[in-house]
Amino acid sequence: MSCVKISARASEKVKAIKWSPQCTCPLFNSPRKIEPIQQWHPKPSLFFMDTSEAPAPGEFGSLTEQYKTLNPMQQVPAVEIDGITLSQSLAVIQYIDETRPGPRLLPADPKKRAQVRMISDLIASGIQPLQNLYVIQKMGAEKMQWAQHFIDRGFQALEPILKETSGTYCVDDEISMADICLVPQVYNAERFKVDLEKYPTIKRLNQTLREIEAFRVSHPSCQPDTPEELRG
Amino acid sequence: MSCVKISARASEKVKAIKWSPQCTCPLFNSPRKIEPIQQWHPKPSLFFMDTSEAPAPGEFGSLTEQYKTLNPMQQVPAVEIDGITLSQSLAVIQYIDETRPGPRLLPADPKKRAQVRMISDLIASGIQPLQNLYVIQKMGAEKMQWAQHFIDRGFQALEPILKETSGTYCVDDEISMADICLVPQVYNAERFKVDLEKYPTIKRLNQTLREIEAFRVSHPSCQPDTPEELRG
Repeated sequence: MSCVKISARASEKVKAIKWSPQCTCPLFNSPRKIEPIQQWHPKPSLFFMDTSEAPAPGEFGSLTEQYKTLNPMQQVPAVEIDGITLSQSLAVIQYIDETRPGPRLLPADPKKRAQVRMISDLIASGIQPLQNLYVIQKMGAEKMQWAQHFIDRGFQALEPILKETSGTYCVDDEISMADICLVPQVYNAERFKVDLEKYPTIKRLNQTLREIEAFRVSHPSCQPDTPEELRG
Repeated sequence: MSCVKISARASEKVKAIKWSPQCTCPLFNSPRKIEPIQQWHPKPSLFFMDTSEAPAPGEFGSLTEQYKTLNPMQQVPAVEIDGITLSQSLAVIQYIDETRPGPRLLPADPKKRAQVRMISDLIASGIQPLQNLYVIQKMGAEKMQWAQHFIDRGFQALEPILKETSGTYCVDDEISMADICLVPQVYNAERFKVDLEKYPTIKRLNQTLREIEAFRVSHPSCQPDTPEELRG
């Protein structure tokens, strides 16, 4: 049996940031992160998450060195699968998509696939890195303004693209990797009090996606250890 | 005949940063950026770059609004191809790779392909966004320290990964998208005076790649408008 072994989030910053509401990718957001994969790739026997290594929130410090050997970037996710270790959310998602059966997170049509990657990369490279906790912590009192600036800048680019590509979801009417990137980024935008009324397509897509069970259960606001004030 | 129409770099920041030495992706680095594609996908008739829109360096300001409709993020690259408009370097490279003949920039083997994506994403999401000019300009006097910090942090993660995956090039012995990401990132590291001796694998790969004609001619230091002090 193949396995996806999701290793514990264990960077030095985890103690400070808590477990769940910081990761862009809901797949890797918490111990429940594997559920969307199980739903879209409905072969539970192919996937399991080894939570034996996952300590309770607040106990990650001791895993830092151990985790560093698994993912030198010390960020989630890191996945040991098929004899290789992979980090970077989009690389992991695409590997699972290409090697496991089940509904696809990247469309078969090359143009749509390119659009899915464009949207995913715009979020994962163009927005997320500039407002993740590691950067924000360096900003001190300016952190809210900094995060808002970069999320707004990214959403201003994303809105017209999604207006063009979207149907029910980010690209046409099939759930894709782009949707997986969008939802937690909108959650971050809400945390940093970005005005979503300016982005009607983003707002609509997020609302539609949040109705779906897989997104609902993996949403950062619904994790076992999400702080009370961030629960949605 | 299909065409790749590379539109002029025309964001509001272009005037300040000049044309060439700022983009992570050598494919999209200058009017000569298409050459590596032509070499690896040796079907010149499939690819051409329409430079008729490309104004001389220093004349991009007037194109800002026009370019914004093409790429709302106002970054290079933006490509009109097969009836769609694509931005984001990695999405463009993969689209070309999947739809055009010629040597592949992503390996056929899924594991190697995942490793190529992991390395590319580590650079494109984990390093490049934090030291690109738009961010650096916000840092004022601290910009050198800021850039060094994030490049060092990324290279500390990249070095052990490349030690594991590399052969002659980043992943085994075939040139891939990962190599395309590595070379300009090393160039940026050199600009920000990061000590490369700490990263022997990165240094070796960069030296090997720079010997290759396609990398040589597209290197940021070799562009027609590279400032004299940045020429290599």
